[in-house]
Amino acid sequence: MELERSPLAFPFPEELPEIVGVELRVARARYKNWDRADLTFITLSESTAVAGVFTQSACASSEVELGREQVKSGTARALVVNAGNSNAFTGYRGREAVEQIMEQVADHLGCKVSEVFVSSTGVIGVPLPKDKAREGVAQALNAQPCSWLEAAEAICTTDTFAKAAHASAMIGGQRVNLVGIIKGSGMIAPDMATMLGYIFTDAAVEPAFLQQLLSNANRETFSCITVDGDTSTSDTVLAFATGKAGNPALTAFDDAGADAFAAALADVCRQLAQMVVRDGEGASKFITIRVSGASSDDSAHRIALSVANSPLVKTAIAGEDANWGRVVMAVGKAGEPADRDKLSIGFGGIWAARDGLPVEDYDETPVAEHLKGQEIDVTVDLGIGSGRATVWTCDLTHGYISINADYRS
Amino acid sequence: MELERSPLAFPFPEELPEIVGVELRVARARYKNWDRADLTFITLSESTAVAGVFTQSACASSEVELGREQVKSGTARALVVNAGNSNAFTGYRGREAVEQIMEQVADHLGCKVSEVFVSSTGVIGVPLPKDKAREGVAQALNAQPCSWLEAAEAICTTDTFAKAAHASAMIGGQRVNLVGIIKGSGMIAPDMATMLGYIFTDAAVEPAFLQQLLSNANRETFSCITVDGDTSTSDTVLAFATGKAGNPALTAFDDAGADAFAAALADVCRQLAQMVVRDGEGASKFITIRVSGASSDDSAHRIALSVANSPLVKTAIAGEDANWGRVVMAVGKAGEPADRDKLSIGFGGIWAARDGLPVEDYDETPVAEHLKGQEIDVTVDLGIGSGRATVWTCDLTHGYISINADYRS
Repeated sequence: MELERSPLAFPFPEELPEIVGVELRVARARYKNWDRADLTFITLSESTAVAGVFTQSACASSEVELGREQVKSGTARALVVNAGNSNAFTGYRGREAVEQIMEQVADHLGCKVSEVFVSSTGVIGVPLPKDKAREGVAQALNAQPCSWLEAAEAICTTDTFAKAAHASAMIGGQRVNLVGIIKGSGMIAPDMATMLGYIFTDAAVEPAFLQQLLSNANRETFSCITVDGDTSTSDTVLAFATGKAGNPALTAFDDAGADAFAAALADVCRQLAQMVVRDGEGASKFITIRVSGASSDDSAHRIALSVANSPLVKTAIAGEDANWGRVVMAVGKAGEPADRDKLSIGFGGIWAARDGLPVEDYDETPVAEHLKGQEIDVTVDLGIGSGRATVWTCDLTHGYISINADYRS
Repeated sequence: MELERSPLAFPFPEELPEIVGVELRVARARYKNWDRADLTFITLSESTAVAGVFTQSACASSEVELGREQVKSGTARALVVNAGNSNAFTGYRGREAVEQIMEQVADHLGCKVSEVFVSSTGVIGVPLPKDKAREGVAQALNAQPCSWLEAAEAICTTDTFAKAAHASAMIGGQRVNLVGIIKGSGMIAPDMATMLGYIFTDAAVEPAFLQQLLSNANRETFSCITVDGDTSTSDTVLAFATGKAGNPALTAFDDAGADAFAAALADVCRQLAQMVVRDGEGASKFITIRVSGASSDDSAHRIALSVANSPLVKTAIAGEDANWGRVVMAVGKAGEPADRDKLSIGFGGIWAARDGLPVEDYDETPVAEHLKGQEIDVTVDLGIGSGRATVWTCDLTHGYISINADYRS
């Protein structure tokens, strides 16, 4: 099945900086019957700090289980990403395949096994074939370094465009760079799943502080996107800091440049997260849902997700229908504090309903115009507190059904 | 927009018993620009016991707010159902329209205003027009009594078939009858919403006990169905017991015949609930999800709903794809206790995965055959406890998108 490029796709960034200490390579393990690079091998210079956030799924893959433990040690030397097989729900056989990859790479680099991170994405329930993995890794170990574009393409499964973002920050007079790559478009296409994101920086950052910064950034970026509300067994975001920029290592928010670095990291995460939504299966519109006036930020977040995951809201927007009643419904079902008679709903900055009533003399014309665009804004004000949240999603179209139902894997 | 009759539709029951004490009438209030009965007026003999369960939405309609209070008094004399306008999110203007209907009917019948129940279903955010309501009620007050079929049709909005069910039970040597009618197919079609169900019986049942029985039945029937996970602002189920059968009034489970009546009530509720799923928008398959081995019944229920509401599971079944990895995903994301290595998944009584591993020598042929049918069984065993639950849903097809996105209201 050939997927069409998303109408919301961004071109790949033309000038991504090199991150000193990071080397990219790809290989063809042929995890599926295809002729493309599907194994990505990234080496990191010694003492590279690592941090990670992982899926909350109770059925997480071995890669995720191991990764959660590995980040605790704080250092990384390599990352291997397998595309075409998620190796999830494959029991001890799947775990053996991951451990084999870790050992093969550690032997080659002369590092600890725990410093080799592995991710896999693709079909659930098929153990990663050990022979293909072994041969693919061997091929990668001897390959020439490649570009960010090649690496970003090799981690894709049914993504319709390769995704990368960058930012920079000044730390103690020293410019540091950050580059991130990501794959995913919700849980996409037959049997496919998983969002995998990797951020590389030459900044020097202590592992514990890097973890704190990544967790903070995750909360306001990756945790704020949804395509279909279906959470993968393998979602993983890792941040690697090689320290080659030579800045004084960041250890806490008090350090000079820490705020700038945190902002740059969150910026890269936000760009990557939004790109995943823009590649959401069947997406024709990028939707920003802003909730204010809730009883707390957490409550606002849950209400925003209730709106973002409502199939009726998503289909209404696909149909360019300013159906604010469905937003009321989604707020009402969220199970969060709300007062019907204080609730206000708007599209594109125009209120359709205020304080529990349709706006008098409401003119739908500019709202209908807004809904014809590709970037849709939905605003919800609860009027009962100061909690706020923003969530990004896409619409629900025939494309989603075609990708997920019409084609057998 | 003309909707095609659901392929899962049942014929209307041919012989529904009369319920003594219940009189049905319909009228044309013309809440929309259509030529059909859209106002249903049902009178109930004096001292009819009433019980109700209502939407949990924080944005419930005035009808629901009032109904919640009214059932506390325990008696009912009339029910009015408006189709074509849900009157939800219409503030004081909507409430005035409901109160006007209650007063008009109470005046005519010489009963208390609180004994007149009102439900409305249709577009959200448009106050129910008082003039049309007044004229429609006046018309209904003078109409000839009609059949169950006519009443079941008049409460429909975008349902594709009229829905009714019946049962009977013996109480102290006396046969009692129950008839229920219902409308709804999830939150269906542009601007439409709401499941409304009404059960009538000639049995004598004390209001408090009737409420207990209805709440129990609701928990294992209406609370176990989902079409798209979107909860209406107006969902209402009411049970009315006229007492005309002459049985000794039921007051508690110890009473002779109470168990039989409870079973009959649950039976009618289950039939009605399943009919709503069978009229789910775009539905082509009726899906039963059975969860066992969970940490508790409540946990099993939440896991079953997570599977039933997963767009990826629903599209896979629409595509007749035995994609059990997506069921694993949906179990994993439910946020409930689960142990990946004890989890088993099956379709049509055949295990695809057991104890966290694909079944060795798994033959997909009979499973693929099962998925070609219209009645699909999904089995999940957690292997960690004795909690169980069953949930009914339908698949997610192009029909859902067409109904909800392609047609502007």
